[in-house]
This record gives sequence, C-alpha cells and structure tokens, in this order.
Amino acid sequence: MSYNLLKGKRGIIFGALDENSIAWKTAEKVHEQGGKFVLTNAPVAMRMGAIKELAEKTGAEIIPADATNIEDLENLIEKATEILGGKLDFVLHSIGMSVNVRKGKRYTDQNYDWTAKGWDVSAVSFHKTMQTLYKKDAMNEWGSIVALTYMAAQRVFPDYNDMADNKAYLESIARSFGYFFGTEKKVRVNTISQSPTPTTAGQGVKGFDGFIKYADEMSALGNATADECADYTLTLFSDLTKKVTLQNLFHDGGFSNMGVSQKVMSRFIEE
Amino acid sequence: MSYNLLKGKRGIIFGALDENSIAWKTAEKVHEQGGKFVLTNAPVAMRMGAIKELAEKTGAEIIPADATNIEDLENLIEKATEILGGKLDFVLHSIGMSVNVRKGKRYTDQNYDWTAKGWDVSAVSFHKTMQTLYKKDAMNEWGSIVALTYMAAQRVFPDYNDMADNKAYLESIARSFGYFFGTEKKVRVNTISQSPTPTTAGQGVKGFDGFIKYADEMSALGNATADECADYTLTLFSDLTKKVTLQNLFHDGGFSNMGVSQKVMSRFIEE
Amino acid sequence: MSYNLLKGKRGIIFGALDENSIAWKTAEKVHEQGGKFVLTNAPVAMRMGAIKELAEKTGAEIIPADATNIEDLENLIEKATEILGGKLDFVLHSIGMSVNVRKGKRYTDQNYDWTAKGWDVSAVSFHKTMQTLYKKDAMNEWGSIVALTYMAAQRVFPDYNDMADNKAYLESIARSFGYFFGTEKKVRVNTISQSPTPTTAGQGVKGFDGFIKYADEMSALGNATADECADYTLTLFSDLTKKVTLQNLFHDGGFSNMGVSQKVMSRFIEE
Amino acid sequence: MSYNLLKGKRGIIFGALDENSIAWKTAEKVHEQGGKFVLTNAPVAMRMGAIKELAEKTGAEIIPADATNIEDLENLIEKATEILGGKLDFVLHSIGMSVNVRKGKRYTDQNYDWTAKGWDVSAVSFHKTMQTLYKKDAMNEWGSIVALTYMAAQRVFPDYNDMADNKAYLESIARSFGYFFGTEKKVRVNTISQSPTPTTAGQGVKGFDGFIKYADEMSALGNATADECADYTLTLFSDLTKKVTLQNLFHDGGFSNMGVSQKVMSRFIEE
Repeated sequence: MSYNLLKGKRGIIFGALDENSIAWKTAEKVHEQGGKFVLTNAPVAMRMGAIKELAEKTGAEIIPADATNIEDLENLIEKATEILGGKLDFVLHSIGMSVNVRKGKRYTDQNYDWTAKGWDVSAVSFHKTMQTLYKKDAMNEWGSIVALTYMAAQRVFPDYNDMADNKAYLESIARSFGYFFGTEKKVRVNTISQSPTPTTAGQGVKGFDGFIKYADEMSALGNATADECADYTLTLFSDLTKKVTLQNLFHDGGFSNMGVSQKVMSRFIEE
Repeated sequence: MSYNLLKGKRGIIFGALDENSIAWKTAEKVHEQGGKFVLTNAPVAMRMGAIKELAEKTGAEIIPADATNIEDLENLIEKATEILGGKLDFVLHSIGMSVNVRKGKRYTDQNYDWTAKGWDVSAVSFHKTMQTLYKKDAMNEWGSIVALTYMAAQRVFPDYNDMADNKAYLESIARSFGYFFGTEKKVRVNTISQSPTPTTAGQGVKGFDGFIKYADEMSALGNATADECADYTLTLFSDLTKKVTLQNLFHDGGFSNMGVSQKVMSRFIEE
Repeated sequence: MSYNLLKGKRGIIFGALDENSIAWKTAEKVHEQGGKFVLTNAPVAMRMGAIKELAEKTGAEIIPADATNIEDLENLIEKATEILGGKLDFVLHSIGMSVNVRKGKRYTDQNYDWTAKGWDVSAVSFHKTMQTLYKKDAMNEWGSIVALTYMAAQRVFPDYNDMADNKAYLESIARSFGYFFGTEKKVRVNTISQSPTPTTAGQGVKGFDGFIKYADEMSALGNATADECADYTLTLFSDLTKKVTLQNLFHDGGFSNMGVSQKVMSRFIEE
Repeated sequence: MSYNLLKGKRGIIFGALDENSIAWKTAEKVHEQGGKFVLTNAPVAMRMGAIKELAEKTGAEIIPADATNIEDLENLIEKATEILGGKLDFVLHSIGMSVNVRKGKRYTDQNYDWTAKGWDVSAVSFHKTMQTLYKKDAMNEWGSIVALTYMAAQRVFPDYNDMADNKAYLESIARSFGYFFGTEKKVRVNTISQSPTPTTAGQGVKGFDGFIKYADEMSALGNATADECADYTLTLFSDLTKKVTLQNLFHDGGFSNMGVSQKVMSRFIEE
C-alpha cells in the first residue's frame, strides 16, 4: 500500500540478488512509496536477467560495483547522484558472504585467507561504502543508511560460523561511523537484525530448515519475512525516524528477547 | 505531513497532559495520519481546559480513568471500543510519577509507601491496562501497544531516583505481557526509550536543564524532541512494523550507544 | 578447598532455606574460606531444624528477620555487627517469592495484591536491606553486596510469571543503589544471574524438569550448579574483584549468550 | 597476597610489554598465586631487557611468537606444554594495535591495508591462538582463556578508531569459539572489558589524560587499575569460576552501567 512515504527521496540499494532477497523486496517497496534509486551488486554476484527485471519494474538503473573496491564505489556514487539528480537520502547495504561457510570449513578450522575475504565483503564493504559517501559528501542531511545483520553478532548460532564475527564487526562500524556521520552531516546509520530468512543466500547454511522452524517456534509473533523486513526498512528511510541512530534494531517477531517459548519447551517436556 | 499511515485505525492515548507532553503530540500526529482515538488521563492529573482543546482539535472523546484502577480501565476500554466502533489497533501508555521524587526524598532514603505508589502508577498501570485489554479481547490482530520509558532502566542517572526501577519493571512487563499478547492475539508490545524531554513532568527533576544539555552534547544527532518521538510512535502503530515486538527501542539521537562524544570530552581536555 | 580467601571478613547471608539453597552452599563455602557471618531468614520461611544444623556447622548465629520489615532489618544489622565484632564486608541477598506463582495465577490474570506482595519480598527487600545498611553505615569500605537473580529479567520465560518483573526491578536496584554505595562508601553491588537450579524454591515452577534440561542442552558448559554458584559468589566477596560493580553477572555455563546449541537444534532437525 | 589460588596451574601469557602492561601485572600475580607459565610476545614488540626481568622474577621462560602466524603459535604451544610439563589451564590474550591510530588516520579516512593489519593483530590473533590450542588439544578440561577488551566494542569512543571494531570482532570470537571449546573440551572463554588504563600502549591515543579523568569521574568506584585487572583475571583463571563462559565482563568501577554521574553532571550545571 502506498503512503508516498518516500516521495522525492533518492538512494542506492545494494544486494538485490533475486526475488527472495530482502534488498529486492525493499526495492519494490521503496518504489511503491515514491522513492527513486540505483540498484547495485558485485559483478560476480549479479544475475543480470533477474536484476534487469527488477530495474524495469522499479524504473531503476543498474550500476555494477564490487563493494570492496573503492574505485567501484566512487564510480557508483558519482553516477548514482548524477542519474538521480542530487544527493542521496537512503542507502541499503545487504551484502554478506563467508568463504569458510561456502567451502564447508568449520569454525574451529578456519582458512584465514577465506576469513579475511569474508570479512572484507561482509563487513568492511560497509565502511568503504560509508567512507566513500562521506568523502564525496553524497548524503543529504537527515539521510538514512541501513545495513542488514543477524543476531549471531550477539549470541552463538554454531552454524553461522565466521559470519557471526563479521556481523559483530559490521554492527560496530554502524555505531562508529554513525557517530561521525551524525555529528558532522546529520545522517543516521542503523542496522536491522532480521529473523532468519529463506533467501537464496541463507539456503547455503547447514540445517537451515530446522533452524527456521526453531526460530519461528521461539518468536512471539513467528519469524519476520523478507517482505516485512522491507516494510520495516521503509520506516527507517522515512522522515518519521530522524533521531534513530547508532541502533541495532531487531526485526524478528520478538526472538531476541525470548528465553524460551512454550512451543519450544513442549519439545523438552513431552518426552 | 499526512501519509494516511493510520487510516481506519482506532486506539487509546494515555497521558496527554498539556501541549508539551509526548502523548499530546502523538495524539495530534495520529489524528493527522487518519487514526481515531479516545484520550484518557487520571482524573487527578487531568487539566480539563487543556485536554478539551486537544480533544476538539482531534475529534476525540475524553474518558477519565485512573490507570491503577481496574474498574476505571474496564469502563475506559468498553466505552472506547463502543465510541470508536470496534476493537483497538493501538494504545499509548505515557504515565509516570514518583512520589519520592516529588517530595524530594533521596534514593537512599526512600519512603516505601511512596515507592509502592510510584511503582503502581508508573509500572503496574501498564500491566493493568494490558490485562484488561487482554481479558476483554479488545485488541485487533496486529495491533500495537507502546509505552514510553527512559534509559535509566539500564543505566544509572542518579536524580532519576526510583523512576529508574519503575521503568525497569515497566520494560519487563512489555516483554512478559508482549509474549502472551503476541502468541495468543498477534498483538505487539514495545517500549520507546526517549531522550530526556523538557515536558512538564520532566521539569520536576533536579538540574534538568544541565542534564538536557549533557544528553544533547552526548548524542550523535542531539536529543530527540517530543515531536520526533510522536513521529516515531506513528511508525510503531503503522502496519510497517508488524513483526517488531518485545523491544525496547531507543529514540535518542544515538545517546544509548555513546561512550563519550567529542563535545563532552572537550570539557575534560580543555582544563 | 580453602584458600583463606575471606579470612577476617564479616557478613550476613539471607535465604539459606535448606541444603539445596544457593545461600546454604554459600554459607558453607564462606565458612571454609575463613569468613564469619550471621544467617538470617524470614521467620515464616525459616525451617528451624535445618538452619540450626547449618549454623552449628559454620559457627554462625541465626537472627530471624523479615526482609520487608525495616525494624527487623535494623535489629538484624545491629546485632550482626555486634556479634561479628565490626562492620560488614559482605552481604548475600537470596530471597524471592511470587504469590501469583504459588497460587497458580497466570501472568495475564494477576491478582495485584499478590503482585505487590511478591514485589516487596523479592525486590524491594533488597532496597530495604541496602538502605538500612547505608543509614547505619554498617558496611566496610570495599565491602561487597550480592543479590541472586535470573535471566527472566532480560528475556521471556513464560512460566517465570511476575518473578521476571521482580528480578528486573531487583537488578535495577543493584545499579541504582550501587551508584550511591560506590561513590559514597566504596561498596560494590552486583547481581549474579544463575542457571535454573533445582532448589526447593525453584521446584514450584511448572515443567521445571524439562526446563532444566532445556537450559542444560543450550549452555556451552551445561547448567551451573548451586555449588558452583557459591564458588562464584566467593570471588565477588573477595578482595580480587574490588572494582566490579553495578554488574549483572551471568553464571550459567554460557546460556545467556547462546542463540541456539547443536543439541537443541537436533530436536528440530531430526523430525 | 597469596591464596595459592592457581597452585599447579600452567599457562601462557601474551602481551607483557613493560611494567605498565596488564599482562605484566597478571604474570606477577599468577606467579604469586602458584601458577606457572610461559611469557610470549611478538618479536617486533618485545622489549627484551624488560621481559627478561619479568621472566626471572616469575621463573618463566620466554618464547617469542607473532600471534598472527600459525607456525609461531604452533611452536609456542608445543614448547610451552613441554616446558611446563603438561596441558594448559589458562591463557591470557592481551594484544592490540591499530596502524590507523598509530599513523593518525581518522576513522572516516581509513587506509584499508592498515585496517586489515590491525584486525589481524588485534582480533584474528585470538582466533588463531584458540584454533591452534584446539587442534593441538593443548588445554586441560576446565581450563580458562581470557582476552582483554574495551567497551568501545559496544559504544562509541570517537578516538578509539578502528580498535572499536576490532574489539567487537574479538568479543564475538570469544563467544563463537567459546561455544566449541566449551561443548567439546570443557574450556571456558571470556573477555574482560577493562577501564581505560594508562599503559604504554594506551598512551598513544589522543587526549588520553582527559579521557582517563572522564572515565574516572563517571565510574561509581573510579577507574579500575592494571593491578586490579590482574586480580580479577586471577578469579577467572581459578577453579571458582568454572561455569562462567562466553561472557564479556566489565571491570570498570561501574562505568559500563552509568548514564551519568553527579561529578560529570556538575560540569554541565555549574556553568
């Protein structure tokens, strides 16, 4: 439903891989709310067919960029502000990848070159994006930058592997850079810590279906969907949340503040 | 600016004392977004002249209720659903009062009758409100209940006195009741932890101006105003945040995640 | 094993009910480490036979006191300092009781008189104890006050009922009073958030065995026992933790920072 | 004072630079409590004269090791267990360094090669150490691993620069690896989040004296010293804390739970 919540706002959306992606849903919903944006993805991750469909649907242009590469980011930001006709009001960072996870390396048997690669892609890319935006003075006052994260940054989910540490680093960047972006440019920076979501990326993780069920049974309102996450992101891009900054915001049906639910407990009592 | 964000939604707003109140601002903004509501306040706290003005402006009716009194709450909820023509979609709890603070009792010299009174008014009233809503099945699915709180629930602010403990209890109620309201009725319950705000109520606290300045200098975006808090509350009442529950949400320009700001530090370096 | 860790130290231990109590184990271990103390309990809760046995074993005297009654607390502290021959170095508060739990009242159907009673016994009693100690200037510098709590203060455990809110209030008191006790008297105040423990008190809670198993499977090192909790308490009473204050310390085999364990997950994957 | 708290225990202490180091103080105190250990440091950071003095005093051998280098770590652990005559009971990781800080690079103008270097030295080195200990099965059951950290991992301290993000990553490693070390080998892993300490390393940070004063005025008990931190570390190495794991433990005179102190407020009121 359109409230025109983002009418006249301009932004960049990273990470719309396919229609299961939270970034994809966000792009659709931002468009519906009157926002304009550029879509970007790493050339290596981009599925051209899919993203072109999204671009057409939302009137967006696509600018490939490797978010670990400063030159790519500079080019992206220059072109985006040019195409959109002004500074940016919102940025969504939805990027994450662990080589150790992909290659089936256990957390206690890391290949540190892969650890470094995953850290650069999943976490440092957020700093690089903000540093480039900051240096180019590309954000409007009261603009909003959001990165997606996961609660493994606070608590142990064994199969999440080194992505847990990457997300902890990412959330720290949000606070650290958010301070400078806030005091100097009136830009807010937050992370959304989303329920486990059956995206294409998430499906690589071992035992993911059982995990989705566990999280769903544990959450007071059940798991939050990608669609609902996109809705929530709209509020953070809107003018209604101007003073929300440096926060890690749980969007998870209440999972983060559950110790145990009756549903989960029933599996321990029935036996 | 109206987005019609709350079109067709019905609710109750507690605690609109005068035009400085966050609840007052929220009432104005909910009205602007198309929501309908009943205003309520304790008979003893109500400034009839003021609240009538607000009621007229927003097309609301006023139903006095002492939120520590179950009969009053039952009457309020019955009348509210009758007047508004259906179950409720949102409730704002903005009630707080410490007799120990009012009477100048130090935290280390509490009068425990006053402690109990403040606890009942500031914290248990939230439980009583929800228990009455729950028993009367007065909330619509995906309804949203919000209470205002302050970060003294997590960290020490010496002059906040027993209100710190009351707010900790209040936030715990939000989680505890939020679980049952969520799993059984699909209703979400959250608290907003707001910057210190120069409301009429806040002005009773000793050294409040210096404190407002401290918080402002410490926050990456400065203190959040009552007006901005009302905006934020709109997002929590809207359909865009359906899976946000059991959360304590800081609306404070980033204060909650600051260790120290350069502005605050400058007072320690310059000497 | 005795390290003489508490040689020459004097204190009061509240809440040693029977040999399953954490307070009971703590008394035994404090004695083993060279500390002297007075045992106290509410007259109504005291099992005279049992506590006399403990008193004899540890060379302690018993002074009954209702911790919600200021006169009782005054008498207790006066006598304790007299008996022990000086100001106090440590105090253990291990008191908790919910009438709503006992009488089988659901959280959504509270009897508020019982809520008030449980709050007074479980939470305010800690404030009353500290306020009396403070007013009588009964603590030595670098003394240590510890209260036992449970993680339901932070996260939802549905069967924990209003004890969750009481523990949140208790932990807030530890911070609030800890500030004044720290700055003015160099006394530290902390809470220990212990694993669910099969004490006599805990056994009243519904489905407690299943819950113990759940917590055990979730924790990296399994549940912490009452015995281990007593050991941990020793460190907080010792001179090795002088600057630890205002903290809520999880003693739980890691439960508090677990999102899910492989053991718990296996119950969701196997089906 | 010796309690023989660590009698018969064996370990490795990283990072004893000079007599201001927390690791140095810890070595002295572990020795006093009957523990035996090997001292290690990066060859490039080692001040041979100083560390030899410590080694003689404490009967320890020195094995240089670059904690970012797996071969060095393997050699260290092999030799240490050989010299000490068995598996290890404790390990202290006290390593941190940011090239961006050293070279005066602002957080918004990072050199990412330096960021990567600092991350590897300050954070990944902890993973590498644990992974090597784990693969070599070099820890005894109920052993204890501790890393030193700082609260910039949770909250913004602008001058702390990328060390904030490194410490967030380090603390996440403690949880993530602590889970596997706990469930599989009964080893606990924790971090101590220490007050700002005027160590040689800390003195590089801009405006450090003013910052020390700020933290001291803010803390209920004042800043914790390096000496007190060493005392606290003893408790975590001892058998009295066997079920404490995955925790980040604030050792800071209460700073972490302060919103504001009266001392700090007085600077805002007096003007």
